[in-house]
Amino acid sequence: MKKGKIFVISGPAGVGKGSVLKKLLETRENVFISVSATTRLPRAGEEDGVHYHFLDVDTFHKWIAQDAFLEYAEYVGNFYGTPRRFVDEALEKGQDVILEIDVRGAEQIAQKRPEAVLVFIAPPSWEELERRLVQRGTESPEKIEKRLLRARVECRTASTYHYFVINDTIENAAKELNAIMTAEHCRSMERMEVISGS
Amino acid sequence: MKKGKIFVISGPAGVGKGSVLKKLLETRENVFISVSATTRLPRAGEEDGVHYHFLDVDTFHKWIAQDAFLEYAEYVGNFYGTPRRFVDEALEKGQDVILEIDVRGAEQIAQKRPEAVLVFIAPPSWEELERRLVQRGTESPEKIEKRLLRARVECRTASTYHYFVINDTIENAAKELNAIMTAEHCRSMERMEVISGS
Repeated sequence: MKKGKIFVISGPAGVGKGSVLKKLLETRENVFISVSATTRLPRAGEEDGVHYHFLDVDTFHKWIAQDAFLEYAEYVGNFYGTPRRFVDEALEKGQDVILEIDVRGAEQIAQKRPEAVLVFIAPPSWEELERRLVQRGTESPEKIEKRLLRARVECRTASTYHYFVINDTIENAAKELNAIMTAEHCRSMERMEVISGS
Repeated sequence: MKKGKIFVISGPAGVGKGSVLKKLLETRENVFISVSATTRLPRAGEEDGVHYHFLDVDTFHKWIAQDAFLEYAEYVGNFYGTPRRFVDEALEKGQDVILEIDVRGAEQIAQKRPEAVLVFIAPPSWEELERRLVQRGTESPEKIEKRLLRARVECRTASTYHYFVINDTIENAAKELNAIMTAEHCRSMERMEVISGS
């Protein structure tokens, strides 16, 4: 059976990655959204195994030692990581796997899985990103300032990404992401072997 | 204004390139289909300037001397070429340009315009390609045999292409080509300069 592909989705906090992915799933089948592990505490409404695998710091370090993460990083005092096993199981089943991770995580994936496709979701403007972060209302003004600064750095270092999607509207961004996934499945020479071999 | 991109579409005769492009134009705007110049005689129903620019051999050679072709080749005793001017005018207007040309033409384009995107349209099987060629009914059994042989060689040398679209159904193939064009417009770092610069 045809194996799935890994798509890394990055972009500044507040850019709307979650909404774009939700929209994508309305039109695209055979997609597995990887659930990250983290040592940070659940926010209101977040469920273990759904939004994150919530781990204590000791367990997280044990998983690192067991090479159980495809990538991991520390961010604002907490650890985040992508459990390897669920990703590989989905790929074997022919599902495309989406990893919603940050720029440093993406670099680790690019090294370990060079065939992974890296997509950066950018805001239409800085003003719009700030507006979205404030509207989300989950963080203090200081944290928002910190996130905006980090977002500017991220956008400047995003040249390793293969694709850039501007989230002007969720519909457009999801349509472009969908097109990227369809197009990437047309890249493989596997397709030609079907016909050349016959 | 954002410049358009060149998409080269190749594939064996009878694979259905024309039908796929016609379908594509139903859903996608801002596309210019390049009209080739040729020294071959018009088939029934073919119009000058619409299906081909029909040139005599002397004029074709004059255009070669004037570097007026982006690519040209001789095929079964006739010359075929892509007039450069119309392509560049469309690109400047922000239109994507589709060149329906053969493998040798594609190689010339890849050298002169390395940013061009190369798409190979393949039949789902050799049996199906033969069926389509026979059904088209424009050629003798000998010519069909020749075309089939050529098609096999083309498919084997298609590794320079960026994408492979299997024309199982016209709808699927047009959808994939459309996705490839959308995705390729997400590749450019120009997009990031909009946001990074602000």
